[in-house]
Amino acid sequence: MKEYMNYLRKVDPYVPGEQPNLPNMIKLNTNENPYPPSPKVKEVWKQFSQNDLRLYPDPTSHKLNKAIADYYGLDESQVFTGVGSDDVLAMCFMTFFNSEKPILFPDITYSFYPVWAKLFDVKYEAIKLNENFCIEKEDYFKENGGIIFPNPNAPTGVELPLSEIEEILKHNPDSIVIADEAYIDFGGQSALSLLEKYDNLIIVQTFSKSRSMAGMRIGFAIGSPVLIKALHDVKYSFNSYTLNRMTIEIGAAAMADKAYFEETVQKIIETREWSKKEFKKLGFNFFDSKSNFIFVTHPNYNAKDLFLALRENNIFVRYFNADRINNYLRITIGTKKEMETLFDFLKSYIK
Amino acid sequence: MKEYMNYLRKVDPYVPGEQPNLPNMIKLNTNENPYPPSPKVKEVWKQFSQNDLRLYPDPTSHKLNKAIADYYGLDESQVFTGVGSDDVLAMCFMTFFNSEKPILFPDITYSFYPVWAKLFDVKYEAIKLNENFCIEKEDYFKENGGIIFPNPNAPTGVELPLSEIEEILKHNPDSIVIADEAYIDFGGQSALSLLEKYDNLIIVQTFSKSRSMAGMRIGFAIGSPVLIKALHDVKYSFNSYTLNRMTIEIGAAAMADKAYFEETVQKIIETREWSKKEFKKLGFNFFDSKSNFIFVTHPNYNAKDLFLALRENNIFVRYFNADRINNYLRITIGTKKEMETLFDFLKSYIK
Repeated sequence: MKEYMNYLRKVDPYVPGEQPNLPNMIKLNTNENPYPPSPKVKEVWKQFSQNDLRLYPDPTSHKLNKAIADYYGLDESQVFTGVGSDDVLAMCFMTFFNSEKPILFPDITYSFYPVWAKLFDVKYEAIKLNENFCIEKEDYFKENGGIIFPNPNAPTGVELPLSEIEEILKHNPDSIVIADEAYIDFGGQSALSLLEKYDNLIIVQTFSKSRSMAGMRIGFAIGSPVLIKALHDVKYSFNSYTLNRMTIEIGAAAMADKAYFEETVQKIIETREWSKKEFKKLGFNFFDSKSNFIFVTHPNYNAKDLFLALRENNIFVRYFNADRINNYLRITIGTKKEMETLFDFLKSYIK
Repeated sequence: MKEYMNYLRKVDPYVPGEQPNLPNMIKLNTNENPYPPSPKVKEVWKQFSQNDLRLYPDPTSHKLNKAIADYYGLDESQVFTGVGSDDVLAMCFMTFFNSEKPILFPDITYSFYPVWAKLFDVKYEAIKLNENFCIEKEDYFKENGGIIFPNPNAPTGVELPLSEIEEILKHNPDSIVIADEAYIDFGGQSALSLLEKYDNLIIVQTFSKSRSMAGMRIGFAIGSPVLIKALHDVKYSFNSYTLNRMTIEIGAAAMADKAYFEETVQKIIETREWSKKEFKKLGFNFFDSKSNFIFVTHPNYNAKDLFLALRENNIFVRYFNADRINNYLRITIGTKKEMETLFDFLKSYIK
């Protein structure tokens, strides 16, 4: 073996999530939005000049950052954008988590947290959720090198109340606390209102779920100008031009159409609440999701078997072969019609 | 000061290159292509479905990787794509340069190499170019943790002959050698022909220069399937979905239009050769560039003064305030008309 093979970075083998593309399939496996983004985005690219492609994009993504800042009533200096929230979160790990103390996150959580920690040599401690799969805020009151959790949590969909997030912030004035709000728009309460009071708070959101644009790869962080500048400094030193010209334009247009966005989100919330009733009728147990998915388990049926049976019928959901959650399925909320097809199948499966 | 401020990653302050956007300006400062990409790319996005944006892109970028592989007569397993060659090169540093021995690169070179080395804790040695600003291949025959150089070099435009690259590869069977060919299409000889013989060779190219798409952010690496797989493993573990749906489609369409690409490149080469004659007439000294820029100096005029005078006249070129090159200007090859305007000004400046 060649010596250079010894110096390849060692990473946990990871196979990207299945992105099937079959006719008539019902895709409820990666928490995408069942509705397209605002029709206004298509107007943007129809008018896009081919000649503009030859020029570098604006490295500061000014137009997009401004649109996000305007939406939330913030200053542009409080916004950082990246190639999906995965990019933004990885940049946060790289930028903020450089102490020798371990960072803290839940044991059942977004699967990339431990991966980024290993990649950037960040010590971490995965803290067990309680038996109801909830975060116990007191577990995060000890010494640490930073804190991160999704809210609502993934893949459970459970929301941590704002008052408890504030308790965590209060007990950790010396740490950066990241609220990963990928699913916050589906009825959860954002930590945005705590920004003025807590300089150590970073909020990460994404265009991939509520904003219907997983295909465009846009995520963003919101925080104090000092911390956002630190993210920019690392980004500029690493890859100045990340968001391409079309992404900046399309993202800004989508952000500006608030009415369309709110209507879409409302439809998904309604379908979710209706779906909860249907799951209950069929004897499923689940947590009270505030996200665009429901994490379900059935006392009499094996989750993996059901996962495979659904798949056989062209219905794709997500199964995690991991400790404590291997009898659960994470089911994205699709259109009402897609969910009806799902429940038709489940009714025939659960006799 | 809050304790967390101590744990922010320290990076060299870096201000992204100026991207002015003034009416009638002549932009010769960031080596963009003066010609737009193939008209076929616009057809692609005109037909793009808005509904597709809601779905994640293909994490393997199959369509784009295949188009690149087809263009060069390679297998798809030999191609890795990323968000511009900056992303690809950073991934290479992260993936390949993990030994304790220093990596080697020229002292006058792409300014991001030392930045990535610092960011990823990679030891490095910057090896002095000779007095003609050429790489001395023998300097790269000593023990090292990897080798990287642009070919043609930046910002000089000087090409390292293929036979010398082969010598470097021959003397370094235990190291990964990266040829950063951002500017290779403008008349240089690519190291692609050495791929079959040397498993330790990685070639990095970009869509930002010869392929007229700096605005879309596409770069790629070519190498043995084993090394390309290592890049993919790191990428998937870090951020699975980097290239967005439009980028994959537009990139693939651009790659397929070989005739348009070759015609564009040929026009730039002709303008460059004509420009060399004009610079010579005006008393400038320069290296024999094989890129889409010329690195010029004048015995009687100060480069920084000239830089500022050009700027006053809406002509933007690049000045580096760095050791050994601070009396040079890097001037991108624009259209013939843009270059004529440049020379009209220079004729009045140089009396």
